[in-house]
Amino acid sequence: MGCVTATTSAPGNGAPRSRLSPGQRRTQLLDLGVSLLATRSLDELTIDVLAEEAGISRGLLYHYFGNKHDFREAVVRRAVDDLVEQTAPPEGGEPLDRLLASMAAYVDYVVANYQGYVSIVRAAAGGNDTLRELYEEARTSLMERMFSEDAQGEIVPDTDAARLMLRGWSAMAEELVLRWVVEPSGVTREQLLDALTASLPALIDVLR
Amino acid sequence: MGCVTATTSAPGNGAPRSRLSPGQRRTQLLDLGVSLLATRSLDELTIDVLAEEAGISRGLLYHYFGNKHDFREAVVRRAVDDLVEQTAPPEGGEPLDRLLASMAAYVDYVVANYQGYVSIVRAAAGGNDTLRELYEEARTSLMERMFSEDAQGEIVPDTDAARLMLRGWSAMAEELVLRWVVEPSGVTREQLLDALTASLPALIDVLR
Repeated sequence: MGCVTATTSAPGNGAPRSRLSPGQRRTQLLDLGVSLLATRSLDELTIDVLAEEAGISRGLLYHYFGNKHDFREAVVRRAVDDLVEQTAPPEGGEPLDRLLASMAAYVDYVVANYQGYVSIVRAAAGGNDTLRELYEEARTSLMERMFSEDAQGEIVPDTDAARLMLRGWSAMAEELVLRWVVEPSGVTREQLLDALTASLPALIDVLR
Repeated sequence: MGCVTATTSAPGNGAPRSRLSPGQRRTQLLDLGVSLLATRSLDELTIDVLAEEAGISRGLLYHYFGNKHDFREAVVRRAVDDLVEQTAPPEGGEPLDRLLASMAAYVDYVVANYQGYVSIVRAAAGGNDTLRELYEEARTSLMERMFSEDAQGEIVPDTDAARLMLRGWSAMAEELVLRWVVEPSGVTREQLLDALTASLPALIDVLR
């Protein structure tokens, strides 16, 4: 830790930095990075920005994250982990109600983290292979959860055909929610959620 | 036309080049460019590739298209015009049947032009503003056609809310068809088309 350099801005958290292990400190910095993504795109979240916000030196950030690519990747990994965690459906209840609750949490997540989320989606859809892979992993987690949560296949049977439909439906959910946040077009949050939950059975029913 | 340089490869079309006007020749070259996109990504379609396939010099291509960015843009413009044209619904019939016919034509288009189409979608979804704008124009044309073809609003009423839903539905159609072409997952072409046509009313009904 010889490369620690105090800067003029205060760390902003109450606890002295020395109490945290390097792993905890790294996690704390990642959380800060993810929270900065709420109002910034991924391109705007640089090592410099994080250094300033955390009140630590760029050198220390390089110590934790290697280089700017590793830093970006670590932040995106943390952001998509958060997405998966925050959209976990409640434990009990009917599959369709739990899907609705999970979709409501997804809408809230996108509203709260708009700038960063849209930049991750774009980077993943564009040519960035690492980010595409990371985001694809998150999509797969969300999808696999659907099958484990709905073990009886009440909403979606566990088949390749249903998985294909679910992929299309996820793309729709993403597009709809991202557009709705910017321009609700007279659609209420409830109508948005109803549209998402109503369209899934319509897609699956053609397979039966 | 002083910059014409004959190359060793034959032009491959029967008519002598001198019979075509510059405008016709440019169109012919664009059509060749678009047809090459069936099995190549946009990045792989370079001035060099087109020059070799057309049997003319790079210099002449620069004469027609200015620079490589303008060339790419012109090819994409032509490709999305083709997409809009080839997916035009039949003149008569019920709105839902015409939507089905249009979606069938879309599926066939994607099958026939997979490599180029997927690269255009990715470039548009990623950071390329010009290509995003071009592709967005095509999406808007496809959407506006839906409203003019279905003037009574039998499938989709002409409201901002319905337009939002239609955007989400288009994203699903794109994702589903692109994935289905690569990995049908046991879903027949008919089921795919049924899923697309069945899900649209489900999305619109929540608005009524």
